[in-house]
Amino acid sequence: MNSVQFTINRIQPVNAELLQQAQARLDNKTKPPGSLGRLEEFARRLVAISGICDPDLSKKVIFTFAADHGVVQEGVSLYPSEVTRQMVLNFLAGGAGVNVLARHAGAEVRVVDVGVDYDFEGVAGLIHRKVARGTRNFVKGPAMTREEMLAALRVGIELADQCRAEGVGLVGTGEMGIGNTTPSSAIIAAISGKTVAEVTHRGTGIGDDALLNKIRVIQQGLEVNRPDGNDPLDVLAKVGGPEIAAIAGLVLGCAANSLPVVIDGFISTAGALIASELHPHVRDYIFAAHRSVEIGHQYMLERIGAEPILDLGLRLGEGTGAALAMTLIEAGVKILKEMATFEQAGVTH
Amino acid sequence: MNSVQFTINRIQPVNAELLQQAQARLDNKTKPPGSLGRLEEFARRLVAISGICDPDLSKKVIFTFAADHGVVQEGVSLYPSEVTRQMVLNFLAGGAGVNVLARHAGAEVRVVDVGVDYDFEGVAGLIHRKVARGTRNFVKGPAMTREEMLAALRVGIELADQCRAEGVGLVGTGEMGIGNTTPSSAIIAAISGKTVAEVTHRGTGIGDDALLNKIRVIQQGLEVNRPDGNDPLDVLAKVGGPEIAAIAGLVLGCAANSLPVVIDGFISTAGALIASELHPHVRDYIFAAHRSVEIGHQYMLERIGAEPILDLGLRLGEGTGAALAMTLIEAGVKILKEMATFEQAGVTH
Repeated sequence: MNSVQFTINRIQPVNAELLQQAQARLDNKTKPPGSLGRLEEFARRLVAISGICDPDLSKKVIFTFAADHGVVQEGVSLYPSEVTRQMVLNFLAGGAGVNVLARHAGAEVRVVDVGVDYDFEGVAGLIHRKVARGTRNFVKGPAMTREEMLAALRVGIELADQCRAEGVGLVGTGEMGIGNTTPSSAIIAAISGKTVAEVTHRGTGIGDDALLNKIRVIQQGLEVNRPDGNDPLDVLAKVGGPEIAAIAGLVLGCAANSLPVVIDGFISTAGALIASELHPHVRDYIFAAHRSVEIGHQYMLERIGAEPILDLGLRLGEGTGAALAMTLIEAGVKILKEMATFEQAGVTH
Repeated sequence: MNSVQFTINRIQPVNAELLQQAQARLDNKTKPPGSLGRLEEFARRLVAISGICDPDLSKKVIFTFAADHGVVQEGVSLYPSEVTRQMVLNFLAGGAGVNVLARHAGAEVRVVDVGVDYDFEGVAGLIHRKVARGTRNFVKGPAMTREEMLAALRVGIELADQCRAEGVGLVGTGEMGIGNTTPSSAIIAAISGKTVAEVTHRGTGIGDDALLNKIRVIQQGLEVNRPDGNDPLDVLAKVGGPEIAAIAGLVLGCAANSLPVVIDGFISTAGALIASELHPHVRDYIFAAHRSVEIGHQYMLERIGAEPILDLGLRLGEGTGAALAMTLIEAGVKILKEMATFEQAGVTH
């Protein structure tokens, strides 16, 4: 816990003075004040988060954390667990959705095995940080031990520290793990007190009967493990997963390192929710990429206090939404850096 | 009218079979079916519109049409008319919002003087297609003659024809004209039968009294000119403007040339609305870039039947929203062209 607590202790509020300075600079550009809406918000927040007047977004990285889930045994997903490892290889070959969209956004995808039930020994291009070969089925007991959960959390923190050292300007989260909408719904139910039915949806596209089964499975998991909603790390260990813990760690690490972090969809937001429950200023560093089709997503976003950037009916995960949102955040920063002022352009105002 | 009617007669429905073929191809990519939401819609529509299985978006062009408005005499805008010509020079120098965002999207900005009250003779880089030195004040009579309106409409059509000849893959609309939310509100009121108050908003940011004045001015313009809501070109001439007519022509021309066209915000949508009232299949070629802050925008979009791609609180115009939306449409096309299939990636499905 010490390195986790050390990271939490490093988190500071963002620089409010820089926020105002950046907005004043935007107001002097050749446009009516505020007329670029959220692009202006993105620009001023990037300045305030990074502490840099002209943020450099030339290095952008999306982390796609992969892990397996024992709860798949309960029939909560349309796909078998082997798809997790197959998709990891697809990410490494550059053929998945997140690869296409990250290339489009000028971002690098880093794929992290934090808990896949497969031996990737010798596989090149993969970041090998496995903390367990998948979770245990949470209807029978805790998904992870506290040690496994903390190890996964530290993976995310260390990757954020490394981004800071490398001069990365914008970090994105993503994940792959067959069955992982199930722990995500369990987390928001445990933390918010919403009923399981209110926060549970179709994942990759399950039918009505499978949805009822998924709700029952999550209810059972919560009854068996009784996670303490006021202890986010207890919830994370008992009904979460290694990729969700790594995302929570990445978000914490970004906040501690003054790095803006774009969270992807439902599962990523579950990780970000854990992080933001651990320290109130974490939310200042978060950009919510999009509004997922998953019905529990809105509750998470409200609790974090984040307004999603896009609403395109996405429900793929991997970091696909984060990649798209990065293009819009970067557009905002370019407005700040590249637009002419009234004086430069000789425009009356 | 002949060349306009000739263009309208060329408009065909999009290829429904190609729409299905493109979706079938998307469904074979390594993701749950439909999980990339509207990106998939963008991809299949691009295929169906262009008639090309792998649409080439390497050439993207945004047209920013500029014109002045006599109704500015009535105090409807926060800015004086001279800002229109100043901004034209800013566009040509590359310093305006649309320049920054078009560069970000990999699109070219083409600036068209279709009715600015200023002599740009000899100014390089500008497309000189002036049909009048601004409109007349519509509270005193028609904004344009029918001939001026048709001339502006033909400018847009010819530019669309030229895009087709050049192999442009995606066209965007934009505009600059101090006072031009006023004719745009007048157009939607005349066509939809909504009250002026329901469709009139703050433009560049006018206060409460100025808003009441703007509503009164539009009401007066409609009473004086009595445009026929069932004759879109009558509405366009009497209470529109040259840049709105050129946008209507561009949208018609794109539809006639099987070119997808991204319409920007409130004023561009007024032009697209005129075009879509002239032929029911025009809407199949339209992508609505974003939901503007202007309250009349939603009524226009509903009437066209277009769902906006972005909702970022934008109200600048110029083509800024179109540039941002282009990045998302291109992302969808890249999904179609670049993602691996289940077979290629060896992923179980």
